[in-house]
Amino acid sequence: MHLTLEELLDRPAPYRRDLLNTLPGARSVHLIGTKGYKGTENLGVFSSVVHVGASPPLLGFIMRPLTVPRHTYHHIKANKWFTLNTLHPDFLEAAHQTSANYALKESEFAATGLTPEYSDRCKAPYVKESLIKLGLTLEEEHHIRANDTLFLVGRVQEIFVPDDAVAESGHVDHEMLKTLTVAGLDIYQQSTNSVRLSYARPGHNT
Amino acid sequence: MHLTLEELLDRPAPYRRDLLNTLPGARSVHLIGTKGYKGTENLGVFSSVVHVGASPPLLGFIMRPLTVPRHTYHHIKANKWFTLNTLHPDFLEAAHQTSANYALKESEFAATGLTPEYSDRCKAPYVKESLIKLGLTLEEEHHIRANDTLFLVGRVQEIFVPDDAVAESGHVDHEMLKTLTVAGLDIYQQSTNSVRLSYARPGHNT
Repeated sequence: MHLTLEELLDRPAPYRRDLLNTLPGARSVHLIGTKGYKGTENLGVFSSVVHVGASPPLLGFIMRPLTVPRHTYHHIKANKWFTLNTLHPDFLEAAHQTSANYALKESEFAATGLTPEYSDRCKAPYVKESLIKLGLTLEEEHHIRANDTLFLVGRVQEIFVPDDAVAESGHVDHEMLKTLTVAGLDIYQQSTNSVRLSYARPGHNT
Repeated sequence: MHLTLEELLDRPAPYRRDLLNTLPGARSVHLIGTKGYKGTENLGVFSSVVHVGASPPLLGFIMRPLTVPRHTYHHIKANKWFTLNTLHPDFLEAAHQTSANYALKESEFAATGLTPEYSDRCKAPYVKESLIKLGLTLEEEHHIRANDTLFLVGRVQEIFVPDDAVAESGHVDHEMLKTLTVAGLDIYQQSTNSVRLSYARPGHNT
């Protein structure tokens, strides 16, 4: 199948959305936990988290346009902190359910049965059920002019990860943890057949 | 394991790099194809492609600091076009090998045995061996102040995808295509046990 931009724009909006969202491949998926200035906890599914750098430790993600209230965004602006929590098969349905359109004062924790958990340091709730939990503070905000989305960059302040999933090298074993990825907005999958390749150098073709 | 930012910064740089890169989970991985103003073709592995929006179709990715020449960046600035090409098991070693530090005038296609392919429309080379190929033009460039990386946003101008991998809904089947993901810089894996969940609505917990 070959589609130009013009042909793509002729397709129905749901088709375009699902094609465009799934085309680049499976990607990482997280629950972002936040807390508003009145103390309301919020959870949402995000599939756009990207590694920005290791020193300092920075991660970024895309926030959709503020044409409607985005609870995650307003909470991050109010208290600076947010958490990234990985998804796993034993609570996938509850995690996906947080993407439903709940009212601002309704907590997705209460609505879905997931458990909020706090550390001494982080002012946003972690998801107790998640195996990897990262606490971040907002660092930068970039406005994507082409479609009014925002690229938010956070600094990792705190990490929780199971000991036995971290190799001496620092590599985390997601196949063992059954960390889920997502293709598009609704297809979740696990990883299999992991292979680690050595550092590539010119002239050393395998 | 619990690590604060301060404890993390005390760890050796390679450990920090591999931990931070693998922590968020497996993510999509692509070969980016470009062509410089003198006609030199370039290929590089990128694992930071993120969906920015479907209307207009936009994808973004992170470019590391320009403290050394980044051939992909200079080529995109020179001719505006670049291609995203998916990775698959039958040419994984060649794809990974493109991440070696070749000289500017050396083509990663020639060095690794991958095949450049052109369409009428796109001024950058596609990777013939890839099953999904996207042609994009540079739309925006954002400077991440915290670590001098760039967030580049491109507009999808052209799509190549196998017919039988696209459902009527527009969803692409990456498990069938064996599209690879990457955790960190060097652990590649396939997807398995795909499950599609229905659109979440408040009060309809599963």
